Formats: sequence, structure tokens, C-alpha cells
Amino acid sequence: MGAARFLSGLVDVVDPRRIVAVVNTGDDANLHGLHVSPDLDTVTYTLAGAISRERGWGLEGETWTTMEALARYPSRFSWFSLGDRDLATHLFRTQRLADGAPLSTVTAEIAAAWEVEVAVVPVTDDRVETMMDVEDEGEISFQDYFVRRAHDVAVRSVRFRGADASRPAPGVLDALATPGVVVICPSNPIVSIGPLLAVPGVRDAVTASRDRVVAVSPIVAGAALKGPAGRLLAELGHEVSVVGVARLYAPLAATLVVDEADAALAPAVEAAGMRCLVTPTVMRGPDEAAELARAVMDAA
Amino acid sequence: MGAARFLSGLVDVVDPRRIVAVVNTGDDANLHGLHVSPDLDTVTYTLAGAISRERGWGLEGETWTTMEALARYPSRFSWFSLGDRDLATHLFRTQRLADGAPLSTVTAEIAAAWEVEVAVVPVTDDRVETMMDVEDEGEISFQDYFVRRAHDVAVRSVRFRGADASRPAPGVLDALATPGVVVICPSNPIVSIGPLLAVPGVRDAVTASRDRVVAVSPIVAGAALKGPAGRLLAELGHEVSVVGVARLYAPLAATLVVDEADAALAPAVEAAGMRCLVTPTVMRGPDEAAELARAVMDAA
Repeated sequence: MGAARFLSGLVDVVDPRRIVAVVNTGDDANLHGLHVSPDLDTVTYTLAGAISRERGWGLEGETWTTMEALARYPSRFSWFSLGDRDLATHLFRTQRLADGAPLSTVTAEIAAAWEVEVAVVPVTDDRVETMMDVEDEGEISFQDYFVRRAHDVAVRSVRFRGADASRPAPGVLDALATPGVVVICPSNPIVSIGPLLAVPGVRDAVTASRDRVVAVSPIVAGAALKGPAGRLLAELGHEVSVVGVARLYAPLAATLVVDEADAALAPAVEAAGMRCLVTPTVMRGPDEAAELARAVMDAA
Repeated sequence: MGAARFLSGLVDVVDPRRIVAVVNTGDDANLHGLHVSPDLDTVTYTLAGAISRERGWGLEGETWTTMEALARYPSRFSWFSLGDRDLATHLFRTQRLADGAPLSTVTAEIAAAWEVEVAVVPVTDDRVETMMDVEDEGEISFQDYFVRRAHDVAVRSVRFRGADASRPAPGVLDALATPGVVVICPSNPIVSIGPLLAVPGVRDAVTASRDRVVAVSPIVAGAALKGPAGRLLAELGHEVSVVGVARLYAPLAATLVVDEADAALAPAVEAAGMRCLVTPTVMRGPDEAAELARAVMDAA
């Protein structure tokens, strides 16, 4: 996840206690009876240095005893694996939510347990579900699309069920209103950034801060580095390039950071209404993540 | 659990497909966000030959990776351990219940997955909770009493919350009405057998079959072999002996099976209104369980 990796670089450049990570919960799901928050956990595990670098989700050195045992049963979620140690996080979260704790409180407890100093905040404590209208099947949940179908299916539209009635979690609007840099991380604009903006008040708060908002393009040289962002953008009628990204983000952010591979497109980004910063954006490791974070902070 | 062990002997004596095990769900609990059914699982795992003989609950050869990982979090259920493979059962059950399947259906699915031929049936699909009114604390759940407090606390009274509004699960009353032997297994009369009888219709069905009901005393030589049955009976004003058991079961069962250690009390059992069969009842292994099962079937 580009956003988590960017944050792991940002903490080398900015005091982590001054960073608020507002995280997508549109791909949260109830699976195996548990409340699973993939993006929140990826951010927390990454900042804790515990993420599986190979998989990009879940914990390093994980075992799969429970999932292997689950194969005995006719579970309708056999396609969704959770590691044994990762399961503890979902058990704790599910229990706390059942006790009535808001997701933002539970998320802070989980981050604290991993000694993460960044404030990891779900964009909302309410249930907002990213629903994918896909060919042949109709509307399915994000995990259905992303994991079960391995995002190998044409998407006709995306909506965020429950968004209209949702409210930003405590701290979200304050963080956006506080002077400082707002970064739109290099994530999927449709299904990672989209749900954030769908929560009433968030888009307006970002727009109001536009001068100090910096977006990092998730598209490099006409493709996403990982995941379905490229295909999704195309299917939904957007240009799969930094220019397409600029057209999406121009109302929200003054600056777009693009990779050196896209230097030639800087004028077109500017023409789309964004200042364009060209710098290496591909984060192969922590050093590159920190370099990118430094460039983003300098750009603002 | 004496009942599970008895059943594991009974299947050597009676065609398992003709056995219906009506099982207590009063100690079911929502723990770690999961629906845990300790007695159902103990019966299924025992009949599958998969139970931990050392612990008497959970699976043999279990690992505890998830629970060890949970120690990181301030879980209020850290006192309740679930093994990694056992967790799969709870995940499957919790998911199926969330999908709207009745507990009896899910229990049958779990038993089938373990190739258990005995019909394992929860006494009710409704939520009936064994609540223990204990000294100092007041009313606590059964698992709170049994596991967290290690049943080392004085009990003032026991009630079965939700029992009045509950209905027997499909198959329960039919099983009791079908000609054949009804066995009240050597279990805690208060907290294992009590919840069964608290479900409206069950006590009447057992009473109506009294002539062919055989109870096995869980009390041997004035004490329970395991667990809090002795202390509980005493605290609730019952005599801790086969005679005390006979006074409880006389309205329900024609015959009480007592251990040879209690042979001298046979006349007192008869005086309490039950036929008394004296035979070895302590099941150290499968052979003794089968012997006891044979004696019980012959007694009826």
C-alpha cells in the first residue's frame, strides 16, 4: 500500500506525533464473523515495522493454522485468509466494537499496542462500504472484488454505501483545518481516496486547504505500480496518466508530485490546474520513502 | 465432561446414527467477538476423537499463536483462551449465525465436518444464558464464573436468562418422544442439566418418558469427579451424595446409576423414589465408558 509506505518515510522527516493519518475504511468487511479493517491495519503494521513486506498486508513471519483448520468447514469466506497473529487484531477490534467502542477509539488502542506514534484515524466511525458494480455479477463488496475476484473483472461503477449518512471521525476535520501540509498519498484515487472524500465534510475541508495540499500520483508512466488503479481509472472513463490524476485532484490539491518517468507530462499537469513537482516517487525501500516524504514536505 | 465421555462409550454399544445428544448451551458466550459453544464443541470433538484428553476441552495438539498475539492488546477476555485450530470452529459458527443460520443447523454442519454420526443438537436455538449470582460480585456469566473465577467463589443462586422465551431446537422433543432410552448423562445437575430442563417443554417431555429415563450420578463417594458440581449442590442446599442427586432426578428418571463406591446408599436412593443400579461409573478410558454405556442400556 503506497500510503502506508509513504507514511513510513514521513516519520523520518516529521515528528510522528504531529502526523495524523486519515485512513480509508470503505474496504472494511465482516469476514469470518470478524470486523476486518485492511487499510487501518496495513498503516499500523507498516508504521510498527511489522508488515509482511512480501505480501504488503498482514504480519511478517505469519502462520496460518486457523485458516488451515477452517478448510474443514464449508465457509463461504474460504477465499479470505487471515494469519494467526493478525487474527488477534481482528478479535480485539470485533470485541471492542461489540462493546460499543467507536472504531476510532479501537484503532488508537491498536496503534498504541504497537507503539505507533502517528495518530491513525479511520475517516469515519460509521459504516461506509465501497461497493463495486461489476460485469455479470452486479454489485459486490470491495473484498469480494479485490480478493475473491482478484480485481480481475470489469467495473461499471463504484459507490460508497452509507457515506451520505456518515460523519467524519473525531479529529479528522481538525487535522485538515490545522495549518500544515495535507498529503493525498499515492493510493488508488477511486477506492482508497474516494471513500475519504465521500464522507460529508471531508472534501470541503480538503478543498478549503487546497493551497497546502500535495497529492502524490499513484500512476507512474501510465500504470499503477500495484493493484487495479490503472484498470479502474480507465474503466470509469479517466485517463490513466498523471494528467488523468491531475484532472481528478485539481479541485483538491495545489500540487501534484509525479515521478521522473512522467517529467514530459509536467506541462499537461500544469494545464490541468496543478503545480507539478517531478521527483522519484517509486518507494522500493525506506530510504526512498523518506526521500519522497522530504520532497513532498519541501513542495508544500 | 462426563456427558461427552459417556457418549464416546455409547457409540460402541448403540448405532451412532440412532443417538441424539441434546446439549446444554447455557454456557455459550460471546468472547473475543465470537460465539463460543463450549459444551457443543466438547461433545463433537470428543465423538470425533479430537478432544484434548489432558484438558478435557479444545483440540489435541493445539497451538496458541493467536492468543499469544492477543496479549499485546488490552482485551477484557484475556482470561479466556482459544486454540488456533479451535478458533476455526468459532469463526465458522459466528459467521454462519451472522448469516442467519440457526445454531442447530450450524452445529450439524460442524459435526458433519468432523464426520460425527451422532446427532449433536443444542437444546435450543434461542439464547439461554446461565447466570451465576456469586458472592461480592453479584450476577456474572457462566464463563466468568467457571473460567475467570475458576469456580472458586460462593454461588447464591443460578438462573437461566432467556429460558422462559426459548423453544426447544428442532428434533429435541421428537427425540425425547421416540421410544428408546433417555439418558441423563453424568453432568453437573445445576449448570449442565439445569439449562436443558429450563427450556419450556423439555422437562415435561422427560417426565412423560420417566419410565425409560436413566440418570447417571455425577456424584461419586460424596464428591464430583471434576468441576464444581459438589460445591454448587451444597451451596444451593442439596445433599452432595447420590441421594441428593436422586432427590433432584426422581421426578424425571425411573433409574439412577451410581458407582460401586456408593453401593451402601442404594436403599436411600430407592427411598428417594428411584430404582438404583450399582455399577462402576468412573470412566478413565473408552473401555470403561463403553462398559458404563452398556450397563445403562441394560438398565432401561
